[in-house]
Amino acid sequence: MDYDSLALELHKKFKGKITTALRDTSDLDEQKLSAYYTPGVAEVSRQIADDPTLLPKYTWTNNLVAVISDGSAVLGLGDIGPKASMPVMEGKALLFKHFADIDAVPITLDVHTTDEIVAAIKAIAPSFGAINLEDIAAPKCFEVEERLKNELDIPVFHDDQHGTAVVVLAGLINATKIVGKDLKNCRIVTVGAGAAGTAIVKLLYNYGVRSIVSVDSRGILSDHRTDLNKEKQMLLDYIDSSQDGQLEDVLTGADIFIGVSKADLLDASSIKSMADDPIVFALANPDPEIMPDIARQAGAAVVATGRSDFPNQVNNALVFPGIFRGALDSGVEKITDDHKLAAAKALAELVENPTADQVIPSPFDERVVSAVAQAVK
Amino acid sequence: MDYDSLALELHKKFKGKITTALRDTSDLDEQKLSAYYTPGVAEVSRQIADDPTLLPKYTWTNNLVAVISDGSAVLGLGDIGPKASMPVMEGKALLFKHFADIDAVPITLDVHTTDEIVAAIKAIAPSFGAINLEDIAAPKCFEVEERLKNELDIPVFHDDQHGTAVVVLAGLINATKIVGKDLKNCRIVTVGAGAAGTAIVKLLYNYGVRSIVSVDSRGILSDHRTDLNKEKQMLLDYIDSSQDGQLEDVLTGADIFIGVSKADLLDASSIKSMADDPIVFALANPDPEIMPDIARQAGAAVVATGRSDFPNQVNNALVFPGIFRGALDSGVEKITDDHKLAAAKALAELVENPTADQVIPSPFDERVVSAVAQAVK
Repeated sequence: MDYDSLALELHKKFKGKITTALRDTSDLDEQKLSAYYTPGVAEVSRQIADDPTLLPKYTWTNNLVAVISDGSAVLGLGDIGPKASMPVMEGKALLFKHFADIDAVPITLDVHTTDEIVAAIKAIAPSFGAINLEDIAAPKCFEVEERLKNELDIPVFHDDQHGTAVVVLAGLINATKIVGKDLKNCRIVTVGAGAAGTAIVKLLYNYGVRSIVSVDSRGILSDHRTDLNKEKQMLLDYIDSSQDGQLEDVLTGADIFIGVSKADLLDASSIKSMADDPIVFALANPDPEIMPDIARQAGAAVVATGRSDFPNQVNNALVFPGIFRGALDSGVEKITDDHKLAAAKALAELVENPTADQVIPSPFDERVVSAVAQAVK
Repeated sequence: MDYDSLALELHKKFKGKITTALRDTSDLDEQKLSAYYTPGVAEVSRQIADDPTLLPKYTWTNNLVAVISDGSAVLGLGDIGPKASMPVMEGKALLFKHFADIDAVPITLDVHTTDEIVAAIKAIAPSFGAINLEDIAAPKCFEVEERLKNELDIPVFHDDQHGTAVVVLAGLINATKIVGKDLKNCRIVTVGAGAAGTAIVKLLYNYGVRSIVSVDSRGILSDHRTDLNKEKQMLLDYIDSSQDGQLEDVLTGADIFIGVSKADLLDASSIKSMADDPIVFALANPDPEIMPDIARQAGAAVVATGRSDFPNQVNNALVFPGIFRGALDSGVEKITDDHKLAAAKALAELVENPTADQVIPSPFDERVVSAVAQAVK
C-alpha cells in the first residue's frame, strides 16, 4: 500500500482531520445562547471561581487532552518544528477520538528549551483535563515531563516513553510464557537509550526484572562511561552497569533483545548467539533492527516490531487511549508506575492463548480501551 | 427569564459546550488510520517542512481560532482567573461554531503579565489559524494585542476592543441618518477609556470624526492630566483634549453620547442638556448608563444598549464571526483599520430602512456573517 499517496489525498480532500462540534445538538435559540454565553454563563463562572473543582463538571475539560509537541523528534523525521509536526499531532487527536471518544486538541509549540516548553505548557494547562506530550527530543523530554508532573494538578504523560514501554512489557509477559521463562529472571539487552529505551528499562525494573543491560550508540551504559548525560547516569541505577563493551559482548546468552535504535543492527548470527528460545523486540521504525523472518529463521521464538505488516505490532495506540480515558474518568492527578504496570498486565491478559504470532492484542480489539482504563483507577 | 438557572441546568446536563469530531466521517479502517497517522502522515509533514504555506491546506488550522484569555477582566466579574473564565471562553467557541462554522478552541492562561501572556501565545501560535483575544484587562490588553500583531503571521483581534467599536460605528452611521446629521461633523462624548472605549474613539477618528471628547472615571482626558497611562496619553491624539473638567461640562450640546462605563451615570436632565435629537449609546452591562425608556422620554432620538431585551443591541456577535470567517478564508495576516471600517459600513447597510428601533442588524440575520466576511478581503 502506498500510504504516502493516500495520506496526501485524504489530507487534501478534508483539509485536516478534526473539527469542533456542539455538545447540545438541539436548535440553539436566543434563550439558549443567552444561557451558554452572556448573561447566563456568568453564574457558571461565579460558581467555578468559588469552587475550582467544578471546572470539569461545567466545561469540556472533563474529556479534553492536549497533544503537545515542540516538533523536535517527530516520527523518523527529526526536528521538523511546530508547523510541520501539526499533521502528526492532529493525527494523534484523531486517534484519541476514534479509539476512546476523547476530545483532543493538537498544540505545537514554537519554543524549544526545557524552560520555555515547561513555561508555555504551564501557562495553558488550566484549559485542559490532561496533557499528552509527544515527539519531544530526549533528553529534554525527561525533564519537561518530570517538572510538569510535579507542578501541575492534571495528568501528564509522555507517550513516546511510557506508551511504548507498557506495550513492550505486555508483550514480554506473554512471550516469556510461551518459552516457559520467568520474565523477572531473564537477561535482557536493550539498545537505544532515548525516550522509549529509558522508559522500557525503568518499567521492566519496576516489574521486577534485575538483569538489564542497556546499550546506546557508543556502547554499553556502564559506571565507567564519562560521556553520559544526566538521564543516562540516572538510568545506571536500573541496570547492570558493571560491564564495559559493545552490544555483541552482552548479547551472547541474553534471553531478550529489545531494540529502539536503528535498522539492520542485528543479523542471523546475533540471534544465534543468544540463549535458547530468544525473544526479539526489534522496534526501530520503519525498518527494524532485524527483519522478523530472518530473526525467526535464526531461531527467535517470538519477534515483535513496530510495523503493522508483521505479527506482534508494538503500537502505542494500545495504551494512550485507555490511559487517558481512565485518568479523565477517575480524576487521577498523576499517572503512576503502578498504573503503567497494571495497564501492561491488563493488555497481556487480553491475549487468552499467547502464540509466537500473537503476544500483543490488536488496537482494534474493542476490549483494549476499557481494560487499560480500568488499570488507571 | 432566569438565565442563571437555565445556564446551570444546561452546563450540568451537557458537561460543557463543545467537543471534537472527525472531518472524515466514513468508517476508519486500518488503512485510513495508517494514512491519517503514521506511516502515511510523515509525507504530509515532510511537505509542510519544505513549504510551510501548505499548513492550512493539510491541517485544521485553516478553520481554527484560539479564543484566549487570562481571565483578568471577564464580563462584569473582573479578575476571576483562568479556570473560572473557561465557561465564557468555551461559550465564545460555541458562538464561533454556531454563527460562522469556525472551529474555536478556548485557551485560558495561567499567566498574567504582558510579557508572559505574549510569550505563551507566541509559543502556541503555530497551532492556530487566528487568535481572538478576550477579556484581558486594560491597559495590558493594548500592548498584548499590539505586540502579537507585530510578531505573529496570523490575524490577532481583541474582540472587546474592536468588536464593540465596529458595531458602535455601524449603529451611529444609521442613527445619524435618521436624525439627518453627518456623523463626521457630530460632537461626540465617550465615557470609559478601557478596551472598548479606546477602540471606539480610534475607529470613529479613522472614520473621519474630528470632535470627540473622552471622559474616564476621573474626568475629561485632557492635555493637562498628569495621571494618564501610556495608552490614554496616546489617545489624546485622537480626541479634543484641550478642555478640562467633568462629563457634565462637555455633554451640554453634544450630538452623541457613548458610554462604556457604569450604570446610572446619566439622568433625564443629562439627555436634555444635549443637542437636538441626541443619540445615546448606553453600553454598560448589564445595567446601562441610563435606561432606554428614560432616555427616550427625555428626548433621545435613538438609544442603543448592550442588552438583548431592548432595541438596538450592540452585540459583538455581529462582528467576530464574520471578521474571522473573512480572515481565515482570504488568508489575510492582519485585521486592519480598513477592514474594521468596511465591516461597520457593511453592517450598517444591512439595515435597509433605519428607524429609531433598528439601527443595528440582528445577529440572527443570516446575511451578517458573509457581509462582514466580505469586508475582510
